[in-house]
Formats: sequence, structure tokens, C-alpha cells
Amino acid sequence: MNKEATRASDPDFIGHTEFIAGLCNTPDISMMLTTNDIAVSHLSTHVALKDAIKLVSVERITMIINLTHAALSAFIESPRIAVCGVNPHAGEHGLFGEEDEKIVRPAIEAAVRRGLNVTGPHPADTVFYQAIHNDRHDAIVCMYHDQGHAPMKLISFESGVNVTIGLPIIRTSVDHGTAFDIAWQGKAFTSSLEHALGYAWKLAGKQAKQTTFQ
Amino acid sequence: MNKEATRASDPDFIGHTEFIAGLCNTPDISMMLTTNDIAVSHLSTHVALKDAIKLVSVERITMIINLTHAALSAFIESPRIAVCGVNPHAGEHGLFGEEDEKIVRPAIEAAVRRGLNVTGPHPADTVFYQAIHNDRHDAIVCMYHDQGHAPMKLISFESGVNVTIGLPIIRTSVDHGTAFDIAWQGKAFTSSLEHALGYAWKLAGKQAKQTTFQ
Repeated sequence: MNKEATRASDPDFIGHTEFIAGLCNTPDISMMLTTNDIAVSHLSTHVALKDAIKLVSVERITMIINLTHAALSAFIESPRIAVCGVNPHAGEHGLFGEEDEKIVRPAIEAAVRRGLNVTGPHPADTVFYQAIHNDRHDAIVCMYHDQGHAPMKLISFESGVNVTIGLPIIRTSVDHGTAFDIAWQGKAFTSSLEHALGYAWKLAGKQAKQTTFQ
Repeated sequence: MNKEATRASDPDFIGHTEFIAGLCNTPDISMMLTTNDIAVSHLSTHVALKDAIKLVSVERITMIINLTHAALSAFIESPRIAVCGVNPHAGEHGLFGEEDEKIVRPAIEAAVRRGLNVTGPHPADTVFYQAIHNDRHDAIVCMYHDQGHAPMKLISFESGVNVTIGLPIIRTSVDHGTAFDIAWQGKAFTSSLEHALGYAWKLAGKQAKQTTFQ
């Protein structure tokens, strides 16, 4: 499915994710990027950065924490969810911006009171290292698109899986486009598709290792 | 040099970089994080994200491009400098935010007219991969702290070097703290210090390979 081709016939088409969410009548969704090691969900995706900051609210963080927890609970008991701060060093106790202490921290504390395994606000520039190299976290909740996408695409360019969380169905997707330029040449790599199928299987509560998809 | 200890005696102490810049009377400086493969400079560092966006201006981008070019020119002829966009997908031609087309692009075009090897605005979520895995860029100019720090700390936690560009002197630094908790135990790693010395040597226009520092 090619986005530009679809837009040519339907100018209102935003993307696959929004299209499927519309079909399912579920406005509360999030894009989660995953590898075998880590899942990264986002408070917002395709909006200007200054608007993304305005979307940071206790309600929205709570929703994304809940969706992330529900998705990973299919195959991890009490998934360890790290929540990023908005500002450098997660605001350093209010020194750089007030969102992290006034919005992010209360949302995390409320989630902990509900029994979820949530920590933060973590500085965005160390949390990925801690998750991937030191196995400290199963998931990271990011406050805006590039906070999650930049580290994830750096480490998972060919193995990343795009998951829509919050849908009543399981939906995973490859993390690349249609690549018309190499169609029918037998050289498109299939690993992202295999990872996407494997991750869907995991979300269905199965063990990926029982299958050929992993 | 420990930041907390220094602050205890001088409450106005912000950080090493600002202290040295003050001694040198050079307000126009930038923090550049480097590895052997890539150098990443920043328009701003320790300010709230919403303030960092306001600091994005043609003048400031021009200054950081110039400082980055001047620093790398010590050992790379016509360094290839990639400039990140502010918004997701670098704004996707104005679809998400206007800064990338109205501010970032004109600054890049002006730099190109001055003969510098500058490209962008690049999406922050692919430019690091292209620089590190495909050797497309020598340096990346980032619009805010975490845009550069999150990918860089993920790949260079023990080998990163912090360079202050814009000073009349060469200043490189390790990318970690004083680690009092492991002092005198003989287990502190020294690789970041070695990289910092090696990078200073490179900035002095020498070839690091002629030395033991690399």
C-alpha cells in the first residue's frame, strides 16, 4: 500500500494507521516502534514539535502508558515501562522547563498507584542506552515523534516493526515503504515483514520462538 | 572537576563549558558531541524544549554551521554537514510546522552559497543512520539538546567526546562525570579520556594515527 498513490485517489488519506483507526472507531491509539529488545510508544507523531509539547498532558500520558502496558502484557508479565521527560535531563528538577515535574511525574505516580511498573521521567538521552544495553526497561513512552524515532531508527533500520496500539485488533506493519524502485528485481529485503509477523504473533499471546517468525 | 562540588562554592556556576567560554570572552559557542565517525553540534543545550524551539533562527543556525565547519576543517577537507529539521520528517514540506521551510532551509541555502558543504533540513530520525551506517555526513547540526544527545549517547556511551566549538582554544572533555562512587578502586574506564585527548589532537590539525591516542 503506497501512501502517495492512495492520496491520489483520496486526498483526505493521512496514513495507514489513521485509516485503520477510523475503520475501528478507535480515536485513542498510538504508534509503537518495536525491536526484539524494546517497544517505544509516542504521545504524538505527525505534528509540529511546538504543538507536540502542547499535547503533553496527564490524560494523554496516562492513556499511552495504559495502551503500552496492555499491549506488552500479552507476552511480558508486568512490563517495565520507562517514561521520558519532555526537556533535556528530564528538566533537571524544574531547572529547564516545568512540564516534567508538573505533568509527566504526576502521570507516572498515578500509574504506579494503579499497580503498573512505571518509572521516570527519564532523560531521553540515557534511557535508550539503559533499555538496550543494560536491559532496564521493556518499553519507553516518548513525548514526541523524534524523541523515539531517532534512537529507534538508528538501531533497527531493517528490523523495526510498527505496531498500532489501542485498536481492538492486532495490527503490525513493516517499518519501510513500498520501494517501487526495486520492485520485481528480487532484491527487496524481507526481514522487516518477518519481524512484523513475528511481533503480531507475540501480541496474540503466543511465543514467537514456537514459530518460524523471529 | 565535579559540578555539584563547584556549585557549592559558586552558586552561579552553570557548567564547565560556560565557565571556560566566560574566561575566553566568547559567547558564541556550541557543544559538539563526537565519536570517531561523526560530530554532532547543537543550537542549544540546557534550556526547556519550548524555549529551544524559539532559539531556532537563521542567525543561530548560521553560527553553528560556521563553528562546525571551522572545527572539522582542521582534519577534513570540506566537511559534509547535515542540518536536522525541527519537526518530524523535517516538517514534510511545511505539513508539520513552518520552521523547517522558513528558517532552517534559508540558513542552509545561504551556507551553500558561501561554498560550504551543507545539506538539509534532514529528518532527525534518519540522518543519524545515514551518517553512521552509510557514511553520508561528517557532522550533524541539531536543533535542540535531545535531538543530538539521544542518538549519540546510544551509540557512544563510553567513547563519546564533548567538544566546545567557538573557543579560541581547543577544548575537549570526557562525556561522563567524576564517578566518586568508584574512586580509587582501579576500575574506572579510561577510554573516554583517551578519545578526548585523541580528538583534541585531531582538532589541532594532527593525524591521530601518528599518536598512541586513538
